[in-house]
Amino acid sequence: MRASIISIGNELTQGRVINTNSSYIARKLTLLGFDVVLIASVPDSKDLIKEILNIATANFSSNIVITTGGLGPTYDDITSEALSEYLNEDHELNDTALKMIKQKYEEKNLELTPERIKMAYMPKSASPIPNPVGTAPGIFIERENLTLIALPGVPAEMQAMWERYVEPKLKRFATRKISETTVKIKGIPESSAASIINKYARKDPRVYIKSHPKGYELDKPVIDLYIMASERDEISSRNLCRDICREITLELKNNGALIEGDPDEICKC
Amino acid sequence: MRASIISIGNELTQGRVINTNSSYIARKLTLLGFDVVLIASVPDSKDLIKEILNIATANFSSNIVITTGGLGPTYDDITSEALSEYLNEDHELNDTALKMIKQKYEEKNLELTPERIKMAYMPKSASPIPNPVGTAPGIFIERENLTLIALPGVPAEMQAMWERYVEPKLKRFATRKISETTVKIKGIPESSAASIINKYARKDPRVYIKSHPKGYELDKPVIDLYIMASERDEISSRNLCRDICREITLELKNNGALIEGDPDEICKC
Repeated sequence: MRASIISIGNELTQGRVINTNSSYIARKLTLLGFDVVLIASVPDSKDLIKEILNIATANFSSNIVITTGGLGPTYDDITSEALSEYLNEDHELNDTALKMIKQKYEEKNLELTPERIKMAYMPKSASPIPNPVGTAPGIFIERENLTLIALPGVPAEMQAMWERYVEPKLKRFATRKISETTVKIKGIPESSAASIINKYARKDPRVYIKSHPKGYELDKPVIDLYIMASERDEISSRNLCRDICREITLELKNNGALIEGDPDEICKC
Repeated sequence: MRASIISIGNELTQGRVINTNSSYIARKLTLLGFDVVLIASVPDSKDLIKEILNIATANFSSNIVITTGGLGPTYDDITSEALSEYLNEDHELNDTALKMIKQKYEEKNLELTPERIKMAYMPKSASPIPNPVGTAPGIFIERENLTLIALPGVPAEMQAMWERYVEPKLKRFATRKISETTVKIKGIPESSAASIINKYARKDPRVYIKSHPKGYELDKPVIDLYIMASERDEISSRNLCRDICREITLELKNNGALIEGDPDEICKC
């Protein structure tokens, strides 16, 4: 299944904040067996949010779209409104969401201002996702071939909501098990290892291999070689990853690469 | 002018690597006065790279598109090929690029393998950008309303090329000067500050204001308030930023916010 991640906020498109939310979610989705086909950041613009939602579903054929950011109380928090317009649904006060928000502010002895009530407005078909860390609830929308989830941009809130509410909901879509390992290779440049890596990478569609040049140590080039296997069950996935890892590291060694450690240790996937 | 940044690589869409390149470039483009309307990451798939290039130019009307990643020697480095197909140009061996690559490997006493020569293939109309740190040259393409720049994904290479070759080329497009400041506000929650922030944010299109909740210190909420002003010259830009900063911090103080320091110090833009 294909997934897209959309992060919303001028702080991202202006480069003031590094987008760690999207890599957190991308990693979680990949380990659940999803293909993340698009990660995008757009400014706090309703038109651009609607545009990228349409691109994620239409052009990139995503069945799952996760957004982060733009759910708070300020004027430029417009993700929820953009979702309603994109889905062509009424933008309504959600009673459950209002209760969640009310409780948070009552605990702090603060009244419900229009800015706070705004966070309870959602597309008509949405269910709110509780926020155990902050105030703004998340948004969960399910259609026939599309699951849409909107989470806050504050990483601690987003991660808590992912772990408690989102991941359990997505587990039923998970169809594959992922195993992986990274091997450190010294002494040959990436352009020398390339022909060997290319051969193994093309051999088996269940295996993904990628080299990452990591500069030099004592004048010798260093490469991180990442190997990932995707299979229906965990044992097959681990075995596949280990077998490919052993073959490729052996061939790289025979071609002058320095790889420290025992193959059983290095290739523990 | 509108700009898009596209990062290419499965390591990004699988969440194994945090995309620091796009925030580096987004920050640089913003400070040059560009509006970054889209930051996207796609996997090493030629079709998806072509799709997102088309979206950046057609749907997001970008005049500048910067890509990072996918210029290396391995089988999955396909950015240059995707650019040729997207532009509908022949994918040719570029003599200048080949000379750059040849020199790098001669210095290391390494021969020119097909994997190394591959890095010299580019769209017919491209000029190579020298890589002072690594081997793969960048790609510079200029059309009537579109400048396309492809840079390597290794941050040290990308940044060196940006500073020496890319930024000097883009400076002629820079039409605005940006000034900015961030003020730390304690003691009132974001949802209380929201109505004041909203008022100032809507007042002047040259000014951008955003609040970022930063959790709690000694049980008091902390917000970072970011203020950015955009003007034709540096002095006007600084003055505008300073004036708005003074007005808004004064009004927030009158509403119970704790802001440490002298207004002249805090509002130095």
